[in-house]
Amino acid sequence: MKKLEQVYEGKAKKVFKTDHPDQYIVEYKDDATAFNGQKKGTILGKGVINNKVTNHLMQMLEEKGIPTHFIQELSDRETLVRKVSIVPIEVIVRNIVAGSLATRLGISEGTPLKRPVLEYSYKNDELGDPMINTYHALAMELASEDELVTINRYALKVNQLLLSYFADRGIELVDFKLEFGRLSDGTVVLADEISPDTCRLWDAKTHEKLDKDRFRRDLGNVEDAYQEILRRVMGD
Amino acid sequence: MKKLEQVYEGKAKKVFKTDHPDQYIVEYKDDATAFNGQKKGTILGKGVINNKVTNHLMQMLEEKGIPTHFIQELSDRETLVRKVSIVPIEVIVRNIVAGSLATRLGISEGTPLKRPVLEYSYKNDELGDPMINTYHALAMELASEDELVTINRYALKVNQLLLSYFADRGIELVDFKLEFGRLSDGTVVLADEISPDTCRLWDAKTHEKLDKDRFRRDLGNVEDAYQEILRRVMGD
Ligand SMILES: Nc1ncnc2c1ncn2[C@@H]1O[C@H](COP(=O)(O)OP(=O)(O)OP(=O)(O)O)[C@@H](O)[C@H]1O
Ligand SMILES: Nc1ncnc2c1ncn2[C@@H]1O[C@H](COP(=O)(O)OP(=O)(O)OP(=O)(O)O)[C@@H](O)[C@H]1O
Ligand SMILES: [Mg+2]
Ligand SMILES: [Mg+2]
Repeated sequence: MKKLEQVYEGKAKKVFKTDHPDQYIVEYKDDATAFNGQKKGTILGKGVINNKVTNHLMQMLEEKGIPTHFIQELSDRETLVRKVSIVPIEVIVRNIVAGSLATRLGISEGTPLKRPVLEYSYKNDELGDPMINTYHALAMELASEDELVTINRYALKVNQLLLSYFADRGIELVDFKLEFGRLSDGTVVLADEISPDTCRLWDAKTHEKLDKDRFRRDLGNVEDAYQEILRRVMGD
Repeated sequence: MKKLEQVYEGKAKKVFKTDHPDQYIVEYKDDATAFNGQKKGTILGKGVINNKVTNHLMQMLEEKGIPTHFIQELSDRETLVRKVSIVPIEVIVRNIVAGSLATRLGISEGTPLKRPVLEYSYKNDELGDPMINTYHALAMELASEDELVTINRYALKVNQLLLSYFADRGIELVDFKLEFGRLSDGTVVLADEISPDTCRLWDAKTHEKLDKDRFRRDLGNVEDAYQEILRRVMGD
């Protein structure tokens, strides 16, 4: 598998072509950003951790019936994935109120939601990823009705699977963001990453934050938190 | 029908008890506010116009199968309505991009939507009526699943009926806000008002704004626009 020219450099990952037209290599960086890129920094070892955590969780989900982009881990920071055309919707699933939702709805952070809440954001950095709903997504033709049904079903299933996976490891899954993409034949699969960058993860006993909020809110011990998640997810 | 003590004074209307426990009198004021109460003013004759326009449209909708709170117009500014407990959700229906949606999604005002867009806001002035979706509404127990299905169905039906009613009168229905309420037996009915305060209405030929945006954006001729809508809706 040859790593050819870079297709894209994002805030957290680089994406490369390979000699297979339907496969990309993603390379995880230590760069950290928050508040739509306004806050910038580095979390040492993050790239390695996010690569491993994502791959571990994607394989677990794949086994439980969620199709994903994962093919093979190539190195500490690099993974071979199925090339997709990303559906420009960030799918957020929430189990406990935190972050922007707390402020927007006037509910204190930490309040459990009576049922999982699924939100869509229009994936557009200039607009600050504004929240949308199914009607906006359809009117803007971001996805078809069938695709949205599939995405919703997968997102709620992923939530169930991750909730119990993390619970078994003493972690509360507060909320997380998923991205889906279309393979060349149109099949929708889970893409991008599932990591402490894209999930809110709290210690089940102490409710200590073990995710990117430590960086966003300058809580310190950011690297330790990422390490701790890696340790618990990999089960060593 | 006796007008008893005031139950509530809102930004645009007062609500009074009557000697019937299930009936209220609403009284329409000329007060105008915008941007969540930050901008204040008066639109002379607005109360009378909004009362008449609302009652005319509510009766039209009732005939076409939408249950409403309307009982009887009592005077130029006063109407007898069925008392409801308001569902704390503002239901917005959009046919053409305008206002906050244009800014949020980066689509120019005036762009027709490929299909009607339905949005919910959590009716809460302190929070600035934040946008929510069905999942938030259910998690916050603002309405039941059945109620949301009913509200969605009514809102889209109201849109169809108003679109063609206004089109016949040379008016483009850009967007509008509805409120629904529960009667004492739980039945969901359309409540509040449907007026140039709560709809964006453009002249079909000139696209001139004939609604509260003239007040919001200091476009002048506010009273004339409201008069013009009254004239076209009542068909004189
Ligand atoms: N299997 C895949 N095929 C193609 N693109 C992918 C795949 N998985 C993820 N991506 C995309 O690759 C990019 C990863 O980079 P990164 O996460 O750093 O982006 P980002 O800074 O979050 O910016 P944005 O997601 O807004 O482009 C994202 O655009 C993501 O949507
Ligand atoms: N049939 C009804 N029974 C009870 N309340 C009603 C009925 N119809 C409308 N209302 C409520 O009466 C009030 C009308 O006042 P107005 O429109 O001035 O309120 P407002 O300033 O918009 O503020 P808010 O709607 O946020 O309370 C609203 O709260 C509305 O929800
Ligand atoms: Mg990303
Ligand atoms: Mg009102």
